[in-house]
Amino acid sequence: MGIHKNAEWLTGRIRDLQSFLCVGLDPDISKIPESYKKSKEPLLDFCKDVVRATESVAIAYKINVAFFERWGSQGYRQLEELVRFLPQNSFVIADAKRADIGNTSSQYAAYYFDQLNVDAVTLHPYMGFDSLEPFLQYKSKWSVILALTSNPGSADLEMQNMMDGSFLFEKVLSLFGRTEYTDQIMFVVGATQPAHMSRIRQNIPNHFLLIPGIGEQGGDLKTTIGSLRNTHEGMLINVSRGISYPNGVNTNFESIVDAASSYSEAMKRFFCG
Amino acid sequence: MGIHKNAEWLTGRIRDLQSFLCVGLDPDISKIPESYKKSKEPLLDFCKDVVRATESVAIAYKINVAFFERWGSQGYRQLEELVRFLPQNSFVIADAKRADIGNTSSQYAAYYFDQLNVDAVTLHPYMGFDSLEPFLQYKSKWSVILALTSNPGSADLEMQNMMDGSFLFEKVLSLFGRTEYTDQIMFVVGATQPAHMSRIRQNIPNHFLLIPGIGEQGGDLKTTIGSLRNTHEGMLINVSRGISYPNGVNTNFESIVDAASSYSEAMKRFFCG
Repeated sequence: MGIHKNAEWLTGRIRDLQSFLCVGLDPDISKIPESYKKSKEPLLDFCKDVVRATESVAIAYKINVAFFERWGSQGYRQLEELVRFLPQNSFVIADAKRADIGNTSSQYAAYYFDQLNVDAVTLHPYMGFDSLEPFLQYKSKWSVILALTSNPGSADLEMQNMMDGSFLFEKVLSLFGRTEYTDQIMFVVGATQPAHMSRIRQNIPNHFLLIPGIGEQGGDLKTTIGSLRNTHEGMLINVSRGISYPNGVNTNFESIVDAASSYSEAMKRFFCG
Repeated sequence: MGIHKNAEWLTGRIRDLQSFLCVGLDPDISKIPESYKKSKEPLLDFCKDVVRATESVAIAYKINVAFFERWGSQGYRQLEELVRFLPQNSFVIADAKRADIGNTSSQYAAYYFDQLNVDAVTLHPYMGFDSLEPFLQYKSKWSVILALTSNPGSADLEMQNMMDGSFLFEKVLSLFGRTEYTDQIMFVVGATQPAHMSRIRQNIPNHFLLIPGIGEQGGDLKTTIGSLRNTHEGMLINVSRGISYPNGVNTNFESIVDAASSYSEAMKRFFCG
């Protein structure tokens, strides 16, 4: 990951592969096939196979850090190995959902951007602008900020109305959506939120979006791409469980290849028309 | 940490020690004395000395997980050792500020509450109620939810007005402040926010609060205790840098003992009057 994967790089990769596909790596010990569990590093070995099965079609990989932190220091050892294993030409997102006061966020930023050296990390906006500034100081790295998430609980706060009639998630978009950061801030917008998509694109016409909620969570690909695509493509669409565990406990290498190809083919149709 | 440290236990400890003191463990490699840096486990060795210097006066320890995650798997090994080292009769908070969709939050909850087995973990409320439910399923553990934080950026979103005139942080208090959870939810309220304290206490008269912002960040002890104390004491007051690094780089064991004693004595005055 030596090169700076800016917005132009992302647009180029999306057009080359005719795909928005980000493969989510969520190594859930209760779901990975039995054969991996005999290994000393089951999370790593399973994720490596998911990567081998998907690297020809994936633009990006999103590593769900929780599934590694679950196992503490042993989990982090596997996380660190996994990042070294990922293809040089993939965009790597640590889905960590961190954020704290400045001197503490600096520590998180140093781990993810200096030591682990991933391209992007996901972040909570709740504590305000200064809480994310230490991440923004890394000009060649991406801060991926939660805006409107894919879960039902997004109605509790994110979709609550502010005094001026806007939603809370729109306050987040305007707080972090300044043009000077278009090349280093993305926003998370769930594919399960079609009603808000066109308004979101009006608020932030130029920013890249990271889109969870396709697959297991039920979001629709056509609506999502139709509503959120912009002139430089502008999105990565994540699929985690739908690719890693397409057949539940009977998942194997071939079924992962097939699931990834099927998402890839479905996306390709939006480039051929 | 075999016993369930519920609200009644906390009230008892606070009255026994006549103190609200929570000692924050933030092992910042740029601040810890030179002598520790030769060690293979400098974070652990420094924190152990902070604990030895403060255990007679501390009700609680708040471990800032970012300063361990900064060093990846090596940091987590030290974090895990540190938790095992902490006194049995202290209340242990992992200041991790996690939260994600349900299946992912379950992984974080399993690490902090099952494997690490701390008493409490700090959490971001932004993604709504369902994002924190996996933590709330641990009935004998505490979810410490960010409400009004101590940093200037708290004005950006937390203090923004909602349609009904309340602040966003008040929506958080009402979303998570149901009485059925008084024995397992605390809220974070910064000591730097005196203007909002009495209203916060009206909103959630019975909940415990975790209060950062005393010491380095400038919050006032008398105002904080005067405004937020309730009939069962109802708060833990955290001091991190003011105890661990009272003399900057010239900090030593004695200066940590002295700093902790001085906060402890200052708090004792609110029990003798």
